[in-house]
Amino acid sequence: MSVLPQSVQKVIDEFENLPGVGSKTAARMAFHYLRNPNKEATKLAKALLEMDVSIKICKHCFSISDSDECDICTSKIRDKTKLCVVEEPLDLITLENSAVFNGLYFVLGGVISPMDGIDIEHLRFNELVKRVKELSSDVDVLEIILALNPSLEGEATSTYIYQLLNEFVQSKKVLITKLAMGLPTGADLEYADSLTLKKALEGRH
Amino acid sequence: MSVLPQSVQKVIDEFENLPGVGSKTAARMAFHYLRNPNKEATKLAKALLEMDVSIKICKHCFSISDSDECDICTSKIRDKTKLCVVEEPLDLITLENSAVFNGLYFVLGGVISPMDGIDIEHLRFNELVKRVKELSSDVDVLEIILALNPSLEGEATSTYIYQLLNEFVQSKKVLITKLAMGLPTGADLEYADSLTLKKALEGRH
Repeated sequence: MSVLPQSVQKVIDEFENLPGVGSKTAARMAFHYLRNPNKEATKLAKALLEMDVSIKICKHCFSISDSDECDICTSKIRDKTKLCVVEEPLDLITLENSAVFNGLYFVLGGVISPMDGIDIEHLRFNELVKRVKELSSDVDVLEIILALNPSLEGEATSTYIYQLLNEFVQSKKVLITKLAMGLPTGADLEYADSLTLKKALEGRH
Repeated sequence: MSVLPQSVQKVIDEFENLPGVGSKTAARMAFHYLRNPNKEATKLAKALLEMDVSIKICKHCFSISDSDECDICTSKIRDKTKLCVVEEPLDLITLENSAVFNGLYFVLGGVISPMDGIDIEHLRFNELVKRVKELSSDVDVLEIILALNPSLEGEATSTYIYQLLNEFVQSKKVLITKLAMGLPTGADLEYADSLTLKKALEGRH
């Protein structure tokens, strides 16, 4: 694409690194800014630079935050007897936006996936044990909800966490649960895969 | 989404302004940068700022360029007897990448679309007439290829250009053509719309 000015090609290349963005979409994005004279490209650039500088990781839940402690971990009205373990901050946001959970969170940083080079030492298992100890000393019964993605790796990681917290489970002060699996709302039985159907049948109530 | 740090929300808002990007995709894009520690956000920001500063409009074809005159307009090997009129610089890039045209270009800046508030005075018709005069004084016969999008507005704009250049057409020194319409390669007759079929039938050869 020698016909493109170098500065435009650079922007397109950067956009192409984004998830789900191919070369055509990246080009359309770059040209969106070329068409718009009201300095929109500058606005995005400034927002990105500011985010890069100002973003912090909460020292309790390891989610992204404006400061060292996030609003959820420092909130007085959140239920401290429930700790929801998620893979990524985005999962936390999704749960928060659906307003179905009022407890605390813990961001693991991913799931065990040797194929992608993600081993136990790359994830926050030690920090999770520390956090569980911390919280369970404060409350009568602490419920840990494993809200990892329902993938093979997510399942394996859930099992690993269960083993890791075995001694706490024995002490009955910590309860470990997993998100229910089954048919999503609005699904069509006809198109459901067999594993989902199996889980839905197993979990019938 | 008060749970999101403000700096992240700002980046998501900016991404949402991009064509074809909804709130979920915008969030995924912002988190892509939060996950990547190698300053990728800074790289995109810098590329955007550089583009904003360095990009120029070619004074001949009005496409984007690194300087006041683009490589195509100043090239010695391009066919100066053919001028292809396109709506946007992106259309020019698409034509260039498919390597099917070796002439010069002219970027109109859009099509007449009163519904979107785009009238004749918003487009480069005067500049087009000037460019046609300039080129047709140099060559024997100048062919103007109208490569506007095959929409209602594109058709109307093509007709307007034809009327505008009427006196040149009379002088026989300027030939005006339009891109052929019909079935695209790999299309399925079964799924073709009736207007496309009509055009394909009319243009049979």
